[in-house]
Amino acid sequence: MDINIPDVVAEVTAAFQRYEKALISNDVAVLDELFWKSPEVVRYGVTENLYGYDAIANFRSNRSPANLERVLLNTIVTTYGRDFATVNTEFKRPPTSDRIGRQSQTWMKTEEGWRIVSAHVSFLLVNG
Amino acid sequence: MDINIPDVVAEVTAAFQRYEKALISNDVAVLDELFWKSPEVVRYGVTENLYGYDAIANFRSNRSPANLERVLLNTIVTTYGRDFATVNTEFKRPPTSDRIGRQSQTWMKTEEGWRIVSAHVSFLLVNG
Repeated sequence: MDINIPDVVAEVTAAFQRYEKALISNDVAVLDELFWKSPEVVRYGVTENLYGYDAIANFRSNRSPANLERVLLNTIVTTYGRDFATVNTEFKRPPTSDRIGRQSQTWMKTEEGWRIVSAHVSFLLVNG
Repeated sequence: MDINIPDVVAEVTAAFQRYEKALISNDVAVLDELFWKSPEVVRYGVTENLYGYDAIANFRSNRSPANLERVLLNTIVTTYGRDFATVNTEFKRPPTSDRIGRQSQTWMKTEEGWRIVSAHVSFLLVNG
């Protein structure tokens, strides 16, 4: 398995940046587009566990569009062959916050393009 | 990409169960073995962000072996082709706890066997 083939890293980085832009602007159509259209997809959010494409889309459509601005830290894109990738990043939301968020995504290349098949978002706890 | 080929699901399920048994018995050798031996591997824990195999192994070697017992809920193994998989599960630790934990792992098949390339563990927040 070839790790971090440069053109694959570039593709996944572009998809990730498109997702991030959609997230902070609450572009629900793009957020929905970039999740795998499957009952198998999972998204663990800070306050919700979502199973399947429909549950994730329903969450997006009901989310407040306020205060979504954030900054990313220590973003790591890793690709495995040509069809699989992980993107892990820390974030601060709002950017002035002291709390450290973490976002993990697993991406798969489908016929329609790169899609998130699994995602997990949480805040680091200072005391577990 | 063939999703959930039965013998691949069986392989990943066996690797996941081996990891879970090692986790609750604090079998550090097996926990270390099952993480990808690479500086690219990431593990976001409840109270720590760990980058690279050495940081994860160091964390394991310093972890308290007390109170690791947990029960799993809603475990979902999904495989993508023959070399990639995600495993998402909720858990309660201790088993009597009301808090819901979430564990996401991305697995890759290497020459040495299935290895975790990315992991994220957190507790669901009731109020974000």
